[in-house]
Amino acid sequence: MAEQSLSQEPSQALVALDAEGVLTPEVWIAVAERTGIDELRQTTRDEPDYDVLMTSRIDALDAHDIKFSVIADVIAGLEPLPGAKDFLDTLRSRYPVVLLSDTFEQFAQPLMAQLGWPTLLCHTLLIEDDRIAGYKLRIDDQKAQCVRAFQGVNYRVIASGDSYNDLTMLAAANAGILFRAPANVIEENPQLPSCSKYAELLELVDQAA
Amino acid sequence: MAEQSLSQEPSQALVALDAEGVLTPEVWIAVAERTGIDELRQTTRDEPDYDVLMTSRIDALDAHDIKFSVIADVIAGLEPLPGAKDFLDTLRSRYPVVLLSDTFEQFAQPLMAQLGWPTLLCHTLLIEDDRIAGYKLRIDDQKAQCVRAFQGVNYRVIASGDSYNDLTMLAAANAGILFRAPANVIEENPQLPSCSKYAELLELVDQAA
Repeated sequence: MAEQSLSQEPSQALVALDAEGVLTPEVWIAVAERTGIDELRQTTRDEPDYDVLMTSRIDALDAHDIKFSVIADVIAGLEPLPGAKDFLDTLRSRYPVVLLSDTFEQFAQPLMAQLGWPTLLCHTLLIEDDRIAGYKLRIDDQKAQCVRAFQGVNYRVIASGDSYNDLTMLAAANAGILFRAPANVIEENPQLPSCSKYAELLELVDQAA
Repeated sequence: MAEQSLSQEPSQALVALDAEGVLTPEVWIAVAERTGIDELRQTTRDEPDYDVLMTSRIDALDAHDIKFSVIADVIAGLEPLPGAKDFLDTLRSRYPVVLLSDTFEQFAQPLMAQLGWPTLLCHTLLIEDDRIAGYKLRIDDQKAQCVRAFQGVNYRVIASGDSYNDLTMLAAANAGILFRAPANVIEENPQLPSCSKYAELLELVDQAA
């Protein structure tokens, strides 16, 4: 006779990953390099308030009259971080994987194509006449909210990221892991395991699962 | 100056797809063909109660002493439906896509590898000494619950499936589409648009998004 179990204790794991800094380069740093606009070098690693960061980015683009198509062209020339595709494929052969990123649909496509179309949950830009007119956060604190949504459908969630905007996600997850985080983020979060190589991250994920 | 919007009106779409019958063949029909056990031909298209269906499958396997490794071997020989990978890649280039299936992690891997590792949310089998001893539903009515979880993080969810076990998912979604459903399912659900070709499904998804 078959045993059936409807226990709510999660026995299946799902992995949530930040994208920029974990699998892909920081788009805004690439844009800063191409355009020579130093204000664009700031990322979520430097500025914890995403609204302040995005507003200053859009203001800087406007001040220098940088069009969306210039940014799209920079992004089209980017590649995933070395080893990221192999790491992601190995991870996807073991667990369902979802990328939780504060990037925008309009930025993500060329890099997602190179990564083999992982499922990316992110935000959207308002583009008017080839100008980034603004942005629309799909939902506030989306990374942590998505972790809780997956826990709500009975997954044990293992999350990894590198920045300030990952900390609520890492705290909400059943297990959170810092990957290639800057020294200040590592120091301020001694409770989180931290690593810098994909092989180490795989091992930490397997242990947590 | 940048506009920022935190409106809760979903402007981003996510696509939820059933796997078996939509992208992949029915595993249990392939097992029935290989083993000659006719009781295994029943699918969710025939039997609306998944617990009745799974229990009768496991009892039939036990009665004929069919081991898990035999089933794994049948599955290893299966391929996605013709055109499924191209369809899925096109869809993934436009939307985040999640497969919501009442299959089991242990069954899915060879077909997911061939489909380029889409994110699959499903259940798990209890395997003991190479025997399927039972199964563990991750959560009851997972397809509809996952649709609601994605809506809860402000996605407009477009769902497609073919069987009785997809109906609560299709009803919960912002837009539900029947794909290659049997005549009885189509007749009983006249409110749902229905199609049988991937090009039509893409068009219906784009319209709904």
